[in-house]
Amino acid sequence: MFVDNINRRSKIPFYQQLYEILRGKIVQGDWKPGDMMPPESELIEQYQVSRNTVRQVLDLLVQEGLIYRQRGRGTFVAHPTLEQTMLRIISFTEDMQQRNFVPGTEVVSSKVITTPIEIAEKLQIAEGEELAVIERLRLADGEPMSIEKSFLVHRYCPNILRYDYALNPLRQVLEREYRIKLIHARQIIRAIMASGELAELLKIQMPSPLLFIERVSFSQDSLPVEYLEIFYRADRYSLYNELQD
Amino acid sequence: MFVDNINRRSKIPFYQQLYEILRGKIVQGDWKPGDMMPPESELIEQYQVSRNTVRQVLDLLVQEGLIYRQRGRGTFVAHPTLEQTMLRIISFTEDMQQRNFVPGTEVVSSKVITTPIEIAEKLQIAEGEELAVIERLRLADGEPMSIEKSFLVHRYCPNILRYDYALNPLRQVLEREYRIKLIHARQIIRAIMASGELAELLKIQMPSPLLFIERVSFSQDSLPVEYLEIFYRADRYSLYNELQD
Repeated sequence: MFVDNINRRSKIPFYQQLYEILRGKIVQGDWKPGDMMPPESELIEQYQVSRNTVRQVLDLLVQEGLIYRQRGRGTFVAHPTLEQTMLRIISFTEDMQQRNFVPGTEVVSSKVITTPIEIAEKLQIAEGEELAVIERLRLADGEPMSIEKSFLVHRYCPNILRYDYALNPLRQVLEREYRIKLIHARQIIRAIMASGELAELLKIQMPSPLLFIERVSFSQDSLPVEYLEIFYRADRYSLYNELQD
Repeated sequence: MFVDNINRRSKIPFYQQLYEILRGKIVQGDWKPGDMMPPESELIEQYQVSRNTVRQVLDLLVQEGLIYRQRGRGTFVAHPTLEQTMLRIISFTEDMQQRNFVPGTEVVSSKVITTPIEIAEKLQIAEGEELAVIERLRLADGEPMSIEKSFLVHRYCPNILRYDYALNPLRQVLEREYRIKLIHARQIIRAIMASGELAELLKIQMPSPLLFIERVSFSQDSLPVEYLEIFYRADRYSLYNELQD
């Protein structure tokens, strides 16, 4: 049976009992993703615990990613979807929404280059073929979060640089204008040091580490279309996943 | 139909054609994991290409993780299992074997401490409870690869420090002596800067980045038993995974 009150005779500290109770309501679905949590005053009243205890428990649940606070609005049950970023191709916009940030994008540069050998190999094209390169600064709540450098096989999407990628999601342009849907990707995750150029764009000090993802994305025809480099600020971004035996 | 020779009239460079041919044999299973690849001389003869071309193609396949070289033995088809490290709980030993390294372990320290609040929360125990802490240096081909700090709820595995973890895998001791099987885990992946202490143990210069994993592992009874911190040398270790739309 599900316990919904504090056992005052137990040796288990109140904060831990309250933690188990509230966690249970979320995990078992009594409180659903997006639901507003009861205000602190109500939890104090209902469970007869101190404000400190309530805050400690809410802090724990925030840390665990089960709930999140929105300034001026209250505390909400989180969508348990963070680990999707490790299994599904999702856009920066979706990723930030799951993390409860407001996403933003600035285009740093866009140009056509001839393919260097390392990228030619990844995209299975000849050296010297044209690549369209789009470099975007990604913002979360107005602060730099990451830099994304997309290298696209220009032959598959001629003139793709004519669109403004501060406004248009790149994947949407690929689908709408070129009938290319990126349905599969392979990625490598590393830690690197920020170069001076990246540190400046990301507004971080030197030396700082970055979480670095290299991703090759394949179309519905299994063609490698995009090689993507993502440089995440390590102080703002981490990956989460679950493992089974 | 599957092409097994170079089209000499095609505009596609030979190296790329050979790459597609050899890759096809691996991906389609003509050559199986563990199989030895034909020697360079045989590939040169069979496909009528230069030694340079063969080497370039083999380098590409090594980079992709499809084959690996063993000094003095030859080139082999790799086991396509690297991404399991992102989905399954596997031991350091298994992980290194998949990466074709010889694993090794040195115990840096082992002691009992009282649980600090941050770890108490992760393990859902009271502050001040006893934790058994085991710090191991992990080696790959005799060179430092990572540091693992395990924090175990001592109450679940009393006297666990009496075993020598240079010789005994920790998970094996947990299963054999305490009937605890870690069957589920949650982890967070970040980039951090190496502290002086870690840099010294890992034999890297300062400043250097590390790939940092924090993992909570749960028993068959859904009890959080272990909190693990893994600090990987970023110049030697990366994670790989695949994504779907």
